[in-house]
Amino acid sequence: MSAPEHPRADPQTSERYLARQRRLCGYLAERDLEAAVLVDLEGSRNPSLRYLCGHPQDALLFVFASGDTLLLPWDVPLAERHAVVGSVRAFEEYGRSEEAAIRSILADAAVRSAELPASLSYPLVESLKASLPGAELLCRSDGVERRLRQWRAVKDEGELAALRRACGLTNELVEEIETLLLGSSQGHPELREVDLALRLEAKAREGGAEGMGFDTLAAGPQRSFAIHCFPSVTPGSFGGQGFSILDFGVVVDGYTSDVTLTAVRGPLSGRQEEMLKAVREAYELAASLCGPGAEPLAVARAVDEHLEARGFCMPHSLGHGIGLEAHEEPVVRSRKTAWSVPAFEPGMVFTLEPGLYEPGEGGIRLENDFLCTGDGVEALTAARLVRL
Amino acid sequence: MSAPEHPRADPQTSERYLARQRRLCGYLAERDLEAAVLVDLEGSRNPSLRYLCGHPQDALLFVFASGDTLLLPWDVPLAERHAVVGSVRAFEEYGRSEEAAIRSILADAAVRSAELPASLSYPLVESLKASLPGAELLCRSDGVERRLRQWRAVKDEGELAALRRACGLTNELVEEIETLLLGSSQGHPELREVDLALRLEAKAREGGAEGMGFDTLAAGPQRSFAIHCFPSVTPGSFGGQGFSILDFGVVVDGYTSDVTLTAVRGPLSGRQEEMLKAVREAYELAASLCGPGAEPLAVARAVDEHLEARGFCMPHSLGHGIGLEAHEEPVVRSRKTAWSVPAFEPGMVFTLEPGLYEPGEGGIRLENDFLCTGDGVEALTAARLVRL
Repeated sequence: MSAPEHPRADPQTSERYLARQRRLCGYLAERDLEAAVLVDLEGSRNPSLRYLCGHPQDALLFVFASGDTLLLPWDVPLAERHAVVGSVRAFEEYGRSEEAAIRSILADAAVRSAELPASLSYPLVESLKASLPGAELLCRSDGVERRLRQWRAVKDEGELAALRRACGLTNELVEEIETLLLGSSQGHPELREVDLALRLEAKAREGGAEGMGFDTLAAGPQRSFAIHCFPSVTPGSFGGQGFSILDFGVVVDGYTSDVTLTAVRGPLSGRQEEMLKAVREAYELAASLCGPGAEPLAVARAVDEHLEARGFCMPHSLGHGIGLEAHEEPVVRSRKTAWSVPAFEPGMVFTLEPGLYEPGEGGIRLENDFLCTGDGVEALTAARLVRL
Repeated sequence: MSAPEHPRADPQTSERYLARQRRLCGYLAERDLEAAVLVDLEGSRNPSLRYLCGHPQDALLFVFASGDTLLLPWDVPLAERHAVVGSVRAFEEYGRSEEAAIRSILADAAVRSAELPASLSYPLVESLKASLPGAELLCRSDGVERRLRQWRAVKDEGELAALRRACGLTNELVEEIETLLLGSSQGHPELREVDLALRLEAKAREGGAEGMGFDTLAAGPQRSFAIHCFPSVTPGSFGGQGFSILDFGVVVDGYTSDVTLTAVRGPLSGRQEEMLKAVREAYELAASLCGPGAEPLAVARAVDEHLEARGFCMPHSLGHGIGLEAHEEPVVRSRKTAWSVPAFEPGMVFTLEPGLYEPGEGGIRLENDFLCTGDGVEALTAARLVRL
C-alpha cells in the first residue's frame, strides 16, 4: 500500500551483520563445527539472532561454517524487510516445529557436526540426537551462545549509535518526569503510577522508540520497598511523602536503556535520610571505581562493603550490561558467576544501580547507564534522586 | 507503611491452590516420583508455578509427593503476600543459581526420584544428573508439565471468575474504542496507534487489571497486512481508509483475555470486500462448530477449507486457549501437534480468530474469547469488525 516503514538495511548496517556472521563462521571453522543453530521463539528468546542478522524476533537461524546463512522466520515479510541473510524459508514449511526444522535442515545439508542452542530443552536435544545419529550435535553452556554473549558485551559502532539514541531519548523523558514531579509539588494535580508509565511510553514511541525495554516499574511510597514491584504499575499515587521509584528503559533499533529515578518527598524519617545518603554515596563510589581493566566483581564488592559498614544490605546486584537485552554482560555483582566477564573493556555499556529497601521506610534506587571508554566511564543517562 | 495492597489469599483461594497441589502430589505418588521441580525465571517462564501456589513470578517451586511444598522466590516479601506454600526460602541463599538450588534441595531431602522442568536446558540437566548420581532425574516432554498444561486447559471456578472479569473489562474497552473510532469518522481528531494502545492500558489498569496480556498490536492500514506487526505500535494513524487491526488482552488476577477488532473504512477495493465477507463467514462457521466433544483440529480444518474454497489462505491458527498465558491449551489449528487436546470440554476457554492478510490490501482479523459450556459455547467478549 506504500513503502515499508522499515526499509531493508543500508549497506553499512548490512556490512555490520555480515561481519558478525563472518566472525561466527571463523569460530565454527576453528572448532571443526559445520553449523550453528540459533532459536528465538516465544518462550525461548535469544537476541543473538537479531545481533547476527537483524531479524527482530521469532525465527531460527542456521549459520554454516561455509559462510551460508538460512533464516526460518515465523513471518516472512518481516524477514524480507529486516534480515541480512543468504536465504529465507518460512518456518511454516516445517509446521512451525523447532524439532522438525532443525532435523530436516541439518539432515538435508548432511551436516556432520553442529552446535545446538544452549537453551534447548533436554527432551528436545535427546530427540534430535536420536534422529540424527550420524551427526555430532553439541549442546553446551560454554559454546557458541556464550561466545556470542561475550561478543555482544563489547558494543560496535552501530550498537553504540543505537544505545546513544536510546539514552538520549531517555534523558528527555527523565527531564519531563522531573518537571512533572516538581509541578506536583506546586499544587498541580496528583500524579499516579499509571499516568507516569503511560506518558513515558507515549513520548518514547513518539520519539522513535520501538517500545519499552521491559515493563516500566512505578511504585509510590507504599510499594517502593519491593525491588520489583508487582503489579508493575497501579493507579496508586506516585511522589507522595517518602520514596517513589520509577524504573524504565526505551528501545531504539533493538537496544534498550535502563534507568531508575527515585522521587524523594520529605519530611523523611531519620532512617530514610540515612538510606538516601548511603545510596548517593554508593552510587558515586561505584561510578568512580569503574573503567577499563577494573573488575566488575571487585567494584560490586567494594560497594557492598561500603553499605554494610553503614548498616545496610543491598539485596540485588550493583549493575548489569544492557544492549539487545535489558540484562546482559557484563554482570556487576559481588558474587562470582560462570558467565561474568573478568574486567571492563572499552565499548561495554552497563548500569550502576545501588538501591536500599525496607518495608517500613520504602525503597530508594538510583540507576544510570555508563559506557566504558579508553580511560574511564561516560555516563550516558542522567537520572537523579529528585528531592521534592 | 500501610497494609499491603494484595493481602494473603483468602481461605477459598488458598484451598484452590492446595487442591491443585494435592492433585499433583497424587500424580507423583502414582508414578513413584518423590518430587517435582518447577521453574519460573526471566528467560524461562512457566505460569504453572503461579497456578500451583499463587506466587506471580520469579521463583522455583518444589512439590514433594509427601505433600510438602517449598518455594524459592527471587523476592521474599512478594511470596509472603501471594504464595500458598508450606515454606519459603530466598533464592538468594543459593546465589540465585537454578543449578545450585535444585542440587542442594534434592540432595538435602535425599530424593531418589524427581521430575525436572521439561524446559530445562540440556547442559543444565546433564550437569544435575552428574552431580546427583544417586537420584533418578526425569526430564520429559510428556511428564509433569504437560499434565499441568492439560489441567490448566479446563478452568476451575476461581479461574473462570478471573477470566470473566478480564473479559468484562475487555468489553468495556472495546466499546470505548468503537466510540472513539466512530467519533473519528465525524471529524474528531485523527487517532494514532500509540494513543489507542496507551488509552487501553490506562483504562485497563484503572479497571483493576494487573497489566496487558501481551504487547498490544495496533496496525493502521499501511501495516495491517502483517499478522504481528513490528513494532507493535507506532505513532502512525489508525482507522483510515482500509483495514486497521487492534489486538489486545487485559490481565485480571493473572488471567488474560485476547481480542482483536478490525476498523474497516471504505471505500474498499473489491478484494477487500471479499476478505471482509470471508472473515465474517469463517468466524461464524468456527463459533457454530465449537462445543463439548468437538475436535479443535476438525473445526480448524473446516474453517481452512471454507476459506480455501473462496480463494483465501489463513496464515495462522484459528485459535488457542487463554488463561495464565496468552497462548495455551487447547490449540485450535488445522495441523496436528503433540500437545493438542483431542476435544473441547466444558470449562475450556479459547479464542477464535480468523484473519486474512494481503500486502496490497491490508489485514483483517476478528477475535473473541469463548467458554465451552455443557451444550455449546458462550462468547465472553464482543469485539467486532467495525465499519466506519
